[in-house]
Amino acid sequence: MSDFRFELLGCDGAARTGAIHTPRGDIRTPAFMPVGTAATVKAMLPQSVRDTGADILLGNTYHLMLRPGAERVARLGGLHKFMDWQRPILTDSGGFQVMSLASLRKITEEGVRFQSHIDGHAEFLSPERAMEIQRLLGSDIQMVLDECPALPAEKPVIEKSLAMSMRWAKRSKDAFGQQTDEEKVGRACFGIVQGGTYADLRQRSATELMEIGFDGYAVGGLAVGEGQQAMFETLDATAPHLPADRPRYLMGVGKPDDIVGAVLRGIDMFDCVLPTRSGRNGQAFTRTGALNLKNARFAEDTAPLDPACACPACRQFSRAYLHHTVKSGEIIAAMLLTWHNLTYYQDLMGQLRGAITEGRLESFVAGFRRAYAAPES
Amino acid sequence: MSDFRFELLGCDGAARTGAIHTPRGDIRTPAFMPVGTAATVKAMLPQSVRDTGADILLGNTYHLMLRPGAERVARLGGLHKFMDWQRPILTDSGGFQVMSLASLRKITEEGVRFQSHIDGHAEFLSPERAMEIQRLLGSDIQMVLDECPALPAEKPVIEKSLAMSMRWAKRSKDAFGQQTDEEKVGRACFGIVQGGTYADLRQRSATELMEIGFDGYAVGGLAVGEGQQAMFETLDATAPHLPADRPRYLMGVGKPDDIVGAVLRGIDMFDCVLPTRSGRNGQAFTRTGALNLKNARFAEDTAPLDPACACPACRQFSRAYLHHTVKSGEIIAAMLLTWHNLTYYQDLMGQLRGAITEGRLESFVAGFRRAYAAPES
Repeated sequence: MSDFRFELLGCDGAARTGAIHTPRGDIRTPAFMPVGTAATVKAMLPQSVRDTGADILLGNTYHLMLRPGAERVARLGGLHKFMDWQRPILTDSGGFQVMSLASLRKITEEGVRFQSHIDGHAEFLSPERAMEIQRLLGSDIQMVLDECPALPAEKPVIEKSLAMSMRWAKRSKDAFGQQTDEEKVGRACFGIVQGGTYADLRQRSATELMEIGFDGYAVGGLAVGEGQQAMFETLDATAPHLPADRPRYLMGVGKPDDIVGAVLRGIDMFDCVLPTRSGRNGQAFTRTGALNLKNARFAEDTAPLDPACACPACRQFSRAYLHHTVKSGEIIAAMLLTWHNLTYYQDLMGQLRGAITEGRLESFVAGFRRAYAAPES
Repeated sequence: MSDFRFELLGCDGAARTGAIHTPRGDIRTPAFMPVGTAATVKAMLPQSVRDTGADILLGNTYHLMLRPGAERVARLGGLHKFMDWQRPILTDSGGFQVMSLASLRKITEEGVRFQSHIDGHAEFLSPERAMEIQRLLGSDIQMVLDECPALPAEKPVIEKSLAMSMRWAKRSKDAFGQQTDEEKVGRACFGIVQGGTYADLRQRSATELMEIGFDGYAVGGLAVGEGQQAMFETLDATAPHLPADRPRYLMGVGKPDDIVGAVLRGIDMFDCVLPTRSGRNGQAFTRTGALNLKNARFAEDTAPLDPACACPACRQFSRAYLHHTVKSGEIIAAMLLTWHNLTYYQDLMGQLRGAITEGRLESFVAGFRRAYAAPES
C-alpha cells in the first residue's frame, strides 16, 4: 500500500547517499531535519526553512500532544496545513521529551504517566497512544515509543530497558498497522535501536527490530552524555547490522562534526535543536568554526558572518550588526542567526551528498576538519 | 543645496496627499513610519518592512546613542547600511525617550544630563549633540531637540517649557545648518510645535518655528494622556497655522482612528510603536477592529486573521495557528502579527491617500468608522 520508498543512489565507504520518496516530496539523504517543536521552527517562517534547503521537518509529539493537542490539530486539518509546511514531517514518539521535560513520571509496561510541564495536567503515553497521536497529526514518518535511559548506566539497567523498548516497538508497529489504509498511504513507521553503549545489546536490538520489520531504523539513546567517541563506537557496532535498503536515522545528533562522523558510519538522517537553539543564543556555525556573536571583538567587524554563505544574515548584514542585535536582545538576531545556522547545516548536508556521489568523501572530510577546527582568523 | 522637497498632490477638505521627494526615494503622504528603535523594526527583516508598503522608517536617537553609539554607527557606514534599509530614515532627537526612559534626568538651558537605562552610564544631550548624533547616523529627516512635558500640566509650566523648546529649536537649526554641504544634500530638519493643549501656545510655537524656518513641522507633546478629543482640538488649533507647502508630522500617534482623525485635520506623517508592540503582545488590527489572539475563542478558528489582508499571516495561517503560537510564546507569533499589523497600517494609509486623491475621504472615513467599531462577528 505504501509508496514510501528509500532509494540508495551511491556509497563511499560506509557512507551513503540516496533519496526517500514520499507523496509529499523527496528527502535527499544524508538529510538534516530542522526541529519544529511546537508546530514552528523557532524564529523561522516555513518558506524560509524550505529556502535553507530542508526537505523535511521534525515535530515533537510530546509538545504537540500537550498544546494545541493532537485531536485539535486533526480537527484543524493536520499538522502540515496547521503550520503551512507541505513537505514531509517526521514526528518523534514523545518518549524522549517525557523523560527530560515532564514531572512525576511513572513508567510501567503499559506506558508512561506524567504531568504536563505546561500546566501540570495528568497525561498518559503508551505505544498505542503515541502512534494515535502521530496519526492524528498526519505525520509522514512515525516513530515507535521507546524508553531512553540516561547514560552512563549499568548493563542490567540498559538491558531491562531495552527489553521493554522492544516490546513497545512491537506494540507501536501493530498500532501503526491498524491505521486505515487511506491514512497509511505513503506513511512510514521507524523502529528505534536502543542498548546504550553496549555493542551486543545494540546488535540484539537491531535484530529484534528487523524481525518486526520497519520502513526505517533509528539509533536512539545517544548524544545523552556518553561523548563523541563512545557514540561513534556505538554506531560502528550498530550500523552494519541494519538493512542497507532502509534509511538510518541518528536521533537528536548533533554538532557538525558529529554529523560528519555519523555519515562516515552510514547514517542517513539527523535532527537536532543545536542550529536553532544556538541561533537564539547568539551562536553561529561557520565554515571556520562556531562564533559567539556576543563577543565584543565583533562590535565593529564589518565582515559578513560567513563569506561563503548565501543566507540573508551573511548577504545583507555585518558581524557588527549581528553583535549589536544579539546584545540588544532583538528578535531579528534570533531570526538571522537561526536562518544562517540552518543554512550552514543544509549546506553541509549538500556538500556531504555531493562528496559521496563523487567518491571524494575522505578528502572533503579532511578539509572540513581542518577548516572547522582552525583557530579563528 | 537640498533636494528634499514636498509636493502637494491633492486635498480633500483639510486633508492632503502628496509626496516627499528625497535622494533615497519618495515618501507618499499621508505616511506611516514603522519604528525601528534600535536599528531594527522589531521581529521584521528590512525587506519585509518594505513589502508592507513602508517608504520610510523612524530610528530612535536615544536608543542608538546608547547602543551601539552614534560614532560607532558612523564608522560602520551609517544607519542605512548598518540595518540594511536603503530608503529614507527619520530620527527623533532623543528628547522624548530621555524623559520617559532615562533615570536621574537633569534639565538645564544647556541640555539634559541623564543616566543610560541600559548600564547607568552618564550621558548628555543638547540641541547641538542631538543634531550631531543624527548627522552621524546619516538621518534623512532630523528632528530638533525639544522638551516634552507630561499632560495635563498648568499653563505656566507648559509656557516655560515651550519657551526653552523654541530656544532649543533655534540652536538645533543652527547646528543642522553647520553640517557640511555634502552631508546636508537631501537632508531635512523639522521643527516641533509644542504648547500642550493650549491653542494660543500652539499658535505661538508654530509662528516662532516658521520664523526660524524648517523643512517640515511636527506636532509634538500629544498622545501623552490628554485623550483623543483634546488631541484633535489641539490639531484643529495648530495645523491651520502651519505652512501648506511643508510636511506636517504628528509624533508618536497612534491608533488607527487617531490617524484617520489627524489626516482629516491636515497631518501628513505618523509614527507609532502600536502595530509592532501590539504584534509582539498577540494583538492584531483588522478591518473590523482589534483582536486579542490570546482569546480561547480563536483556538479552533480556521478563518484567516483578516480575509481582506494579503500579508503572510493572513494568506498562510489560520487564527487557530496564531492563537497557538501566541499562547506558546513562539517567536513566529511576533513575526506574523507584526507583519500583519504593519500591513494593516500601510493599507490604511494607502486607502486614505486614494480617498483624498479621489475626493471621497468623507465616505471612506464613515465606512472605516462603521467597520472598525463594529461588534465582532
